[in-house]
Amino acid sequence: MNGSRYELGLKNFKEIYGAIGTKVLENLNHISPDMSRYIIEFAFGEIYSRKGLDLKAREIVTISSLLTMGNAKPQLKSHIHGALNIGCSREEILEIMIQISLYSGFPAALNGLEVMKNVFDERDKKGTYP
Amino acid sequence: MNGSRYELGLKNFKEIYGAIGTKVLENLNHISPDMSRYIIEFAFGEIYSRKGLDLKAREIVTISSLLTMGNAKPQLKSHIHGALNIGCSREEILEIMIQISLYSGFPAALNGLEVMKNVFDERDKKGTYP
Amino acid sequence: MNGSRYELGLKNFKEIYGAIGTKVLENLNHISPDMSRYIIEFAFGEIYSRKGLDLKAREIVTISSLLTMGNAKPQLKSHIHGALNIGCSREEILEIMIQISLYSGFPAALNGLEVMKNVFDERDKKGTYP
Amino acid sequence: MNGSRYELGLKNFKEIYGAIGTKVLENLNHISPDMSRYIIEFAFGEIYSRKGLDLKAREIVTISSLLTMGNAKPQLKSHIHGALNIGCSREEILEIMIQISLYSGFPAALNGLEVMKNVFDERDKKGTYP
Amino acid sequence: MNGSRYELGLKNFKEIYGAIGTKVLENLNHISPDMSRYIIEFAFGEIYSRKGLDLKAREIVTISSLLTMGNAKPQLKSHIHGALNIGCSREEILEIMIQISLYSGFPAALNGLEVMKNVFDERDKKGTYP
Amino acid sequence: MNGSRYELGLKNFKEIYGAIGTKVLENLNHISPDMSRYIIEFAFGEIYSRKGLDLKAREIVTISSLLTMGNAKPQLKSHIHGALNIGCSREEILEIMIQISLYSGFPAALNGLEVMKNVFDERDKKGTYP
Repeated sequence: MNGSRYELGLKNFKEIYGAIGTKVLENLNHISPDMSRYIIEFAFGEIYSRKGLDLKAREIVTISSLLTMGNAKPQLKSHIHGALNIGCSREEILEIMIQISLYSGFPAALNGLEVMKNVFDERDKKGTYP
Repeated sequence: MNGSRYELGLKNFKEIYGAIGTKVLENLNHISPDMSRYIIEFAFGEIYSRKGLDLKAREIVTISSLLTMGNAKPQLKSHIHGALNIGCSREEILEIMIQISLYSGFPAALNGLEVMKNVFDERDKKGTYP
Repeated sequence: MNGSRYELGLKNFKEIYGAIGTKVLENLNHISPDMSRYIIEFAFGEIYSRKGLDLKAREIVTISSLLTMGNAKPQLKSHIHGALNIGCSREEILEIMIQISLYSGFPAALNGLEVMKNVFDERDKKGTYP
Repeated sequence: MNGSRYELGLKNFKEIYGAIGTKVLENLNHISPDMSRYIIEFAFGEIYSRKGLDLKAREIVTISSLLTMGNAKPQLKSHIHGALNIGCSREEILEIMIQISLYSGFPAALNGLEVMKNVFDERDKKGTYP
Repeated sequence: MNGSRYELGLKNFKEIYGAIGTKVLENLNHISPDMSRYIIEFAFGEIYSRKGLDLKAREIVTISSLLTMGNAKPQLKSHIHGALNIGCSREEILEIMIQISLYSGFPAALNGLEVMKNVFDERDKKGTYP
Repeated sequence: MNGSRYELGLKNFKEIYGAIGTKVLENLNHISPDMSRYIIEFAFGEIYSRKGLDLKAREIVTISSLLTMGNAKPQLKSHIHGALNIGCSREEILEIMIQISLYSGFPAALNGLEVMKNVFDERDKKGTYP
């Protein structure tokens, strides 16, 4: 049963993050295979596969939380990729940053815009849409 | 022109928060009328009236940010009311809390659930839907 | 298999937090049974039952993290009880607060001392040792 | 020599916080006399008595830091009293809150204004100036 | 009227940050012209041009807030430059860092000192005073 | 007496951090000799030499606090070295990161694992044990 939860999680994870996710997971496997398993099994097999809030809204929650923390740039980068992969538009990502300036202040928004710009540039180079 | 921005902001603000918002605004007017004006003019006349991200998504961003901060309970309460008023379901609010546990940890989620429960109870007493 | 993970988690949870934990869990069950299950299954069935760091050290990690956040007083209270229940001395709890002042500043330490004092007083009234 | 540092610290502390400080210190003495000593000796005997930044600016630093944390209300209250006692005007305190909204967001500012209002009311009742 | 608010904001912004500010603004204009406009219009045309707290104190508030967040190094760098440009001495900047160690802990202070050192070195190379 | 407190602090500091600590201290001496003195005298001469919590537990407190802040990577690196130097096993360090994921979220844990990996690699290259 845990096995199937892992498989479901891995399927979700790959659908959302694609190649960039696979690389993150491989790195993590070298450091702590258990942590890697918890993220697939619990985060993606359990939480991300819940009903009641669609995947796009879950990524909006995640990006907003990461922007407010302000110190999780690698995760912010991955989740901006993920949000775009599952149907967020670039404009929506930009608007999350502008909205967050009211609650977490301008520095959080500005540092988020910088990460966003890098993700957009990376996708432009590779011709990834959107 | 600022006048119309204020009026637009006040219209947005009242549509989202209703009676609870009016009370928050009156209290704030006694402490700092300028701060009250900035929130109406800038936050609600400017940012909340932007295109590119719908009001429901803006409230999801806001609630996620407030949950991550963890120390802004009065604002969290108002924005859960606001989110429900503009079309979020109770289930979606609950799922935001569950999703946030992955990124901001279980204490942030648990303290958010407590505030959510109080908002739901308050609305049940008054017969407010949803 | 998940069933046995839940049972292991519940056993761990009850051993650490006793009656105060049961009450927290009951409250949470009314708000979100799934969240309650994740905490028992994942946090206590999976993480707290890991080898490599004893339970006392795990509670020191937890209390230090909660002190640094500074906004999770109900959790801090439960975990101070938990730490005392599984073998931390009162003096050790106090020293965690003093040590944290260097890294999270004096306000975090002072607000932690206030919560600690309330826990000690509560235990004194009930004759709980230590 | 440490003795004189303690005495200098206590003199500074009493000049800044007056009666409210004495009460805070007495409470702390019951919980941890060592922590109380560190605050007087190190914070007020060493740091607050440094040259290079006047006391008023030191209180502005402190209030700004506490507003940004957002979870240290008892300390914020004491330091607003302290700032007013050593020469800050009420208008300056208000402006710190408004300025902080840009960097820590509106919730931090609004919750700070609430604490500020309570301090002003308390001083009005006692006829304390300013 | 908004036009003149923008002009006032731009004048304030350029007086405080000089060439380094112009570059920050140009970068931001490429990412989000609206965000750039909000910062000039609202932050610098509205908040920074308020009476009741002088510019030097506003920069002390800002630097203290950024030090406490600890994750906004580009902004911290700009605001240390700004503070020096409008009349803060280097010694005062150093003392803000030392004062903050009491409230946000030593790591926040040490990481701030590192940024401060880089700003001072940069100004020494260019012969900027102070 | 302060002299001996400084000497005790320096002895503690060198025992815990070894060569890496000496380098940190030299850098800091160039930026602010007073800050360097406070860290030796107060942090290591006073707090770290207290009874009631052993050095290993003090480093667990410190690492947990730094992980929760998430923005103090240089300090996290030094304290992982320090913890290993005074008797923590590599497995225990790893488990602190896994435990922290429950309270500060997965991003804090993942970014901590990255720093941990770098410290382990550095020690492997130099043949430092553990």
